[in-house]
Amino acid sequence: MVASEFVSELRQRYGIEFNNLAVLDEAFTHSSYVNEHRELGLSDNERLEFLGDAVMELTVSDYLYKKYPDLPEGKLTRMRAAIVQTKSFSSFSKEAHFDQYIKLGKGEENAGARKRLTLLEDLFEAFNGALYLDQGRGAVIKFAEQVIFPKIDAGEFSTDTDHKTALQEFVQQSGEVTINYRLLGEDGPAHAREFHVDVEVDGKVLGHGLGTNKKAAEQAAAKAALAQLESK
Amino acid sequence: MVASEFVSELRQRYGIEFNNLAVLDEAFTHSSYVNEHRELGLSDNERLEFLGDAVMELTVSDYLYKKYPDLPEGKLTRMRAAIVQTKSFSSFSKEAHFDQYIKLGKGEENAGARKRLTLLEDLFEAFNGALYLDQGRGAVIKFAEQVIFPKIDAGEFSTDTDHKTALQEFVQQSGEVTINYRLLGEDGPAHAREFHVDVEVDGKVLGHGLGTNKKAAEQAAAKAALAQLESK
Repeated sequence: MVASEFVSELRQRYGIEFNNLAVLDEAFTHSSYVNEHRELGLSDNERLEFLGDAVMELTVSDYLYKKYPDLPEGKLTRMRAAIVQTKSFSSFSKEAHFDQYIKLGKGEENAGARKRLTLLEDLFEAFNGALYLDQGRGAVIKFAEQVIFPKIDAGEFSTDTDHKTALQEFVQQSGEVTINYRLLGEDGPAHAREFHVDVEVDGKVLGHGLGTNKKAAEQAAAKAALAQLESK
Repeated sequence: MVASEFVSELRQRYGIEFNNLAVLDEAFTHSSYVNEHRELGLSDNERLEFLGDAVMELTVSDYLYKKYPDLPEGKLTRMRAAIVQTKSFSSFSKEAHFDQYIKLGKGEENAGARKRLTLLEDLFEAFNGALYLDQGRGAVIKFAEQVIFPKIDAGEFSTDTDHKTALQEFVQQSGEVTINYRLLGEDGPAHAREFHVDVEVDGKVLGHGLGTNKKAAEQAAAKAALAQLESK
């Protein structure tokens, strides 16, 4: 059964108490553990992961839809993709100490599976699948209000850092224009090159950018151009 | 506003009555219509499609999870993929006559967009997004009980037609075995070739199959082998 200190931690940190501890236990049972203990007839967490994946997709989509009533579908989809992905979900798992409590087979333990990002992502989905089964979608939303939504509000998954796209969208509101990024040169030592880029909109230089590579310098130039345009 | 005969049809066929007809109207407004009527300041159905996509993912996942308590995650995922896809969703759209009521711009209308499968898929998602917003997930489930779940129950999305995988899973329960498909020959006229295939499991012929191509013949052979094994 799932460790009692984990049960306490879930209650104290998140106010979560499972009615059915067996489903919580299943969420924290990796297939490698099941395979090494066939005599126990356990279920691994993969079915819960299947369910939890869809639960989280809706939880995040619903939040974004309502929080950003003016964002077009394309931006919502990009934001959702930035949230519902291995890097984010695995970090939520670690933050909630889920990695400490998953039951692994010895082989997988020795292979370092406990730190594997896809395993932690699956675990986060399985936990939410279990929470959904045990207490319904309201409980999942409450949990997300603690571990996901504040990060969305803080702009952690903002795709607005794509300044080049933002600049293009901004200037093309008033019809077709030509945007051109011009590499002016690079300097600095080999291990710390600095690239200089100008961005021209219909032939007029609107911004200058610096970056450790050409792409970063173009983003910086686009950002500068946007700042200038938006201050008008 | 959305056609009154559509409002009646939704009520009569599915028992659905929207509280807020504006959200139903939005679900049936294609971006091409918005673009051709900018003076009306309409919203297209793309944001609702974003939401409805996630709503349907969970609706289908939840149903499969509970209906098939013994299916492993891999099979659930394959079944979900067979349901949540353009071909299926567009056919649900047509069955519910959604294609008759979407508002299109003239250009898209003339280009045949009303019959475009991806448009009909998006429309099905947008409708369910609107229903979810207007009345919650219970109403979406009730609608799915009429248009999707009976088809799942009837086996329309069954992935069990992959007899080769099923045979492999069956025989490998008792350890590693070698499965070999042997093309015996082909006959028939060019426009109606018939292929003959034997399947051998650990060197022993367990089934014979016929098909219009090699792959179909292999599937038929696997099915025959499975039938023989399961009758033992």
